[in-house]
Amino acid sequence: MTRYKINLEYDGTSYNGWQKQKDAPTIQNAIEEAIKNFCQQETTVLSAGRTDAGVHALNQVAHFDLNGDFDTRKIIMGVNNHLREACLKKNREFCNSNLRLLLHFPIQDIIILDCQIVDNKFHSRFSAKKRSYKYRILNRNTSNPLEHNRVWHIYEKLDLDKMQKAAECLIGKHDFSSFRDSDCQASSPIKTVDEIKLYRKEQEIIFEITAKSFLHHMARNIVGTLKKVGNGTISVNEFKEILNAKDRRKAGITAPACGLYFVNVEY
Amino acid sequence: MTRYKINLEYDGTSYNGWQKQKDAPTIQNAIEEAIKNFCQQETTVLSAGRTDAGVHALNQVAHFDLNGDFDTRKIIMGVNNHLREACLKKNREFCNSNLRLLLHFPIQDIIILDCQIVDNKFHSRFSAKKRSYKYRILNRNTSNPLEHNRVWHIYEKLDLDKMQKAAECLIGKHDFSSFRDSDCQASSPIKTVDEIKLYRKEQEIIFEITAKSFLHHMARNIVGTLKKVGNGTISVNEFKEILNAKDRRKAGITAPACGLYFVNVEY
Repeated sequence: MTRYKINLEYDGTSYNGWQKQKDAPTIQNAIEEAIKNFCQQETTVLSAGRTDAGVHALNQVAHFDLNGDFDTRKIIMGVNNHLREACLKKNREFCNSNLRLLLHFPIQDIIILDCQIVDNKFHSRFSAKKRSYKYRILNRNTSNPLEHNRVWHIYEKLDLDKMQKAAECLIGKHDFSSFRDSDCQASSPIKTVDEIKLYRKEQEIIFEITAKSFLHHMARNIVGTLKKVGNGTISVNEFKEILNAKDRRKAGITAPACGLYFVNVEY
Repeated sequence: MTRYKINLEYDGTSYNGWQKQKDAPTIQNAIEEAIKNFCQQETTVLSAGRTDAGVHALNQVAHFDLNGDFDTRKIIMGVNNHLREACLKKNREFCNSNLRLLLHFPIQDIIILDCQIVDNKFHSRFSAKKRSYKYRILNRNTSNPLEHNRVWHIYEKLDLDKMQKAAECLIGKHDFSSFRDSDCQASSPIKTVDEIKLYRKEQEIIFEITAKSFLHHMARNIVGTLKKVGNGTISVNEFKEILNAKDRRKAGITAPACGLYFVNVEY
């Protein structure tokens, strides 16, 4: 068996997240299906980050095993072709061949950016040293028609300075129970955040977070709580108290999935 | 009558361009309808640039007259609400209330960013001194699932340096017949290009052009021809010869509408 590592970009809008499900379309399902159509082999594709429904990826990493050495360029082109065909087929069914409707649907919503043959010891999930996520908040009066499903629109003016001060306390090793979803299956609520960046980019506030691993909904729950600091609902100190409380009920809402991007993995 | 100037942002995907039409949805139709729903007055909305089907706008300017002085904040909020309702209604009809489908459609594809009361002599089109357009080329092997309908994907590596050298000859006053659509209604093919910028931004090549006014399809025909310089089909000199030939048949294809953005107007 040869192990292949792939880099993926996707628009998560149409999918129930990464993880394979029987009755709902997922990214993992779509890729495994495309690989099967490409080389008639059943395989399991495992990713570095199991993104939730509606979450996007700019550079997700995954791996799978196949019998035989395939030219990696052929994998990229071949599997991408099958992903595109599946996407178009699904869209046509959705839209009953209404061409005006079809315009709105991505021709290809999952794409393999790169493929490499790797050692059989490489594991996209367990070999990962650092994962990075980015969250995009559009912070202006009106929504942006060109960024639908790409950002969280917050019309209240957010105080970036205060949000930055609040976020500082998250860096390092902490019990993140306050930002942990009740469905989280991690064995411990203790995680180490290596880096956080919060900055303005044109009309957006961008939140970037890097850690070895995350609790379920951790990034989105942090962003939902930082929003409350930004709009003055809670103070910087109260944000710190929320972290220390280790109680999900003290924190803010889960920020919408569409603003979150899985950015990168370091091995 | 009071004259109002509005700044608009829109996703052109669903529309047959700016200009009012009887049997097809256009931006002008949609805004006039929303204003009518807001204040029960029929008015004509005229814009600085009459964008084509599928072309977007980041900061289009338009004006209209109404009886009475309305609070401009109320115009922004009220007309935006009606634009959103119309957009949602149209989407629901399209999608037969299929919620998964609806996710893909912008909740609001036209938005008023700003509104000001202006002198009755102000005319969005005739008072304009400079208009700017931007064209986004995604230049990498694979398409980008997150930029569907936002860029022109060209997978061949483009030589930016050569494209920049070729584009230089367009600056100044020229007969642009080679880049003029056969449907163009301008009285003369002579236009003055004030500024052109071509630069790389991450995986994109961005083309920016500023002029008092443009011929029909001029920006897109220039981009379609610059692509041929970038991929080596024609030389920098041949590009200059195309300009001098004043013959549309010598130039390249019209670049797709979805990569073009009306950026700004100066008055």
